[in-house]
Amino acid sequence: MLSSRIGILGGGQLGLMLLQAAVDWNLDIHILDPDADAPCRRIAPHFQQGSLQDYDTVYNFGKSLDIITIEIEKVNVDALEALEKEGKKVYPQPSVIRKIQDKRIQKQFYTEHQLPTAPFILTENRDDTAKHIDFLPAFHKLGKDGYDGRGVQRLRSAEDLPKAFDQPGLLEKAIDFEKELAVIVARNEKGEISCFPTVEMVFHPEHNLVEYLFAPAEISPAVDEKAKDIARRTAGAFGITGLLAVELFLTKEGEVLINEVAPRPHNSGHHTIRANATSQYEQHWRAILGLPLGSTVPFGPSAMVNLLGEEGFEGPAVYEGMETLLATEQVYPFLYWKAITKPFRKMGHITIMDHDMESLREKVDFVKRNIRVISYKPA
Amino acid sequence: MLSSRIGILGGGQLGLMLLQAAVDWNLDIHILDPDADAPCRRIAPHFQQGSLQDYDTVYNFGKSLDIITIEIEKVNVDALEALEKEGKKVYPQPSVIRKIQDKRIQKQFYTEHQLPTAPFILTENRDDTAKHIDFLPAFHKLGKDGYDGRGVQRLRSAEDLPKAFDQPGLLEKAIDFEKELAVIVARNEKGEISCFPTVEMVFHPEHNLVEYLFAPAEISPAVDEKAKDIARRTAGAFGITGLLAVELFLTKEGEVLINEVAPRPHNSGHHTIRANATSQYEQHWRAILGLPLGSTVPFGPSAMVNLLGEEGFEGPAVYEGMETLLATEQVYPFLYWKAITKPFRKMGHITIMDHDMESLREKVDFVKRNIRVISYKPA
Repeated sequence: MLSSRIGILGGGQLGLMLLQAAVDWNLDIHILDPDADAPCRRIAPHFQQGSLQDYDTVYNFGKSLDIITIEIEKVNVDALEALEKEGKKVYPQPSVIRKIQDKRIQKQFYTEHQLPTAPFILTENRDDTAKHIDFLPAFHKLGKDGYDGRGVQRLRSAEDLPKAFDQPGLLEKAIDFEKELAVIVARNEKGEISCFPTVEMVFHPEHNLVEYLFAPAEISPAVDEKAKDIARRTAGAFGITGLLAVELFLTKEGEVLINEVAPRPHNSGHHTIRANATSQYEQHWRAILGLPLGSTVPFGPSAMVNLLGEEGFEGPAVYEGMETLLATEQVYPFLYWKAITKPFRKMGHITIMDHDMESLREKVDFVKRNIRVISYKPA
Repeated sequence: MLSSRIGILGGGQLGLMLLQAAVDWNLDIHILDPDADAPCRRIAPHFQQGSLQDYDTVYNFGKSLDIITIEIEKVNVDALEALEKEGKKVYPQPSVIRKIQDKRIQKQFYTEHQLPTAPFILTENRDDTAKHIDFLPAFHKLGKDGYDGRGVQRLRSAEDLPKAFDQPGLLEKAIDFEKELAVIVARNEKGEISCFPTVEMVFHPEHNLVEYLFAPAEISPAVDEKAKDIARRTAGAFGITGLLAVELFLTKEGEVLINEVAPRPHNSGHHTIRANATSQYEQHWRAILGLPLGSTVPFGPSAMVNLLGEEGFEGPAVYEGMETLLATEQVYPFLYWKAITKPFRKMGHITIMDHDMESLREKVDFVKRNIRVISYKPA
């Protein structure tokens, strides 16, 4: 399987980390990305510029390959289905991507499979949404094409209705959560399933982006087991081959609910490159190449801070404070090979390790205070 | 410094691992290698085919770059000196490479700097060597161009003299050693020095190649401190900027002697990719980019087994047993992107981790029994 010709749809930072992990096994990887200057460009064994949403481009890209995977869900699934019918291994399977691409289908899938999730109502357009004033306050989510906080709005009351998206979406009860958790789970062709330790994510208060996370999450063993059980059952219900990142809410009552899932490596697993016996990226390769899954045991507590473009700066990226970070023991910056910074753009991340949670928290605060991505041209 | 244009002379497996480590910081790396199909070929941001020993090729390669380093010592040092004079950063410095390239100068250097090494006699040619029958049994080493066991012969008695190299070399007293050790030490521009934990190497009985190693070495704290002290003093004496791998003999009397050194990442440090807080490859980047050195703390005991081409096979490489290894917890094969296997060719290595030395030793035996690199065409 290691000699297969492998394609990845998407050449962003997740692709970059997949490529880096693939060096150990000399995998022959072909990247398709619409951006000629995508993060993967410089080190991909093969790189093709092209649309991920165009049927012919995706189909032609895949037809000379053996295995096709993704690092972003917004891809042409019809083309992937055609490739799958011709005998290509397409992992995650097109049927799984299709269900997850549309948050409406995703939510219904949880209900059908008795997987716990927040109460919701499907809506067709703005007028339809307006009929559900009683359901507010709620999150209003676009069915398709939302990501990293885009395509999600908070509707507090009738006053917010005029700004509601006018497309098919769903209203989801705002959960008064205690913590946001994530479990990355891998499932291989044989149906073997393995979870990474549950992590605790802290989101940016405005921009709905992961700001930082701690691994392991500070939760009771019972909650941890509940989170992992849901992640395993969700991967099993989808029958996915590959990684599934399951984002969860821990409610104030100790209930664990699925927020959403991603069928690929995820921001909530970057720290596993440094902190776990197997990284999420290597685990993805293992899962889709028909190999045994690797140990996910952590070497110790760790944290991950997203390196977001500083507000007020747009232009060639300058990483202020890198040397300070590199002078701090077990602080590992990872940059995404993006030339231009913009406010809140994901420019890199920093993995931080320490022997105990208390010193880890202090180190995280130190890191957050000492690094910023700016540009000498203010935005 | 992270935005420098960096060149590496050599694109073999050490270059490959330097490239992999450089992904985290998006380093702009240019590789020069005589082989159009060198291991680095597929993932180098820039790759140029050309001789490492030709003045013009090396000079022209370096002149558009900011920093030049090596992954092999057999390079044109005159060209590197010219580049250094023009203000390029050449690390390790050409003067250091020149001393180490010639084992005769290297040995004299140890004597001059009171660094312990086995007794030796310089020889000019075969006739000259024949004058030193009294010094036998000894190792006879070519001054230049030996590596991986080539350029070294054992002269037991007068009978072996007719086969002696007929070039400038040295006779070195065969040391009746207890163990062979290695310490990789890094020194940055500021003169800061940091050692990796001392490792214990086991060589192939015939081929003088590292067969496997254990980290840490099973030695007393006093011997460990002696080994590290010698490594630090050697790096200081050379004034090297970059990594220095110091191979050592531990004699039966508990004395520690320098065998030889390499001014670059080394086979005795591959395991640090998985087993230490900073790998030797990242440490080399830190040292030559003027950055603070990273922590070398190990996550636990580890071992490294070299994956050598099986005797009797030559042709397209087949890795028999990979799936067995990948099914074993914390066993990490790393392949060198070499299409063709030959007897004893270094095709990859396997890092092995475990919680204690006893189970680690068992796992090493298991790994050695279960993997081989063959070809379907016998040699």
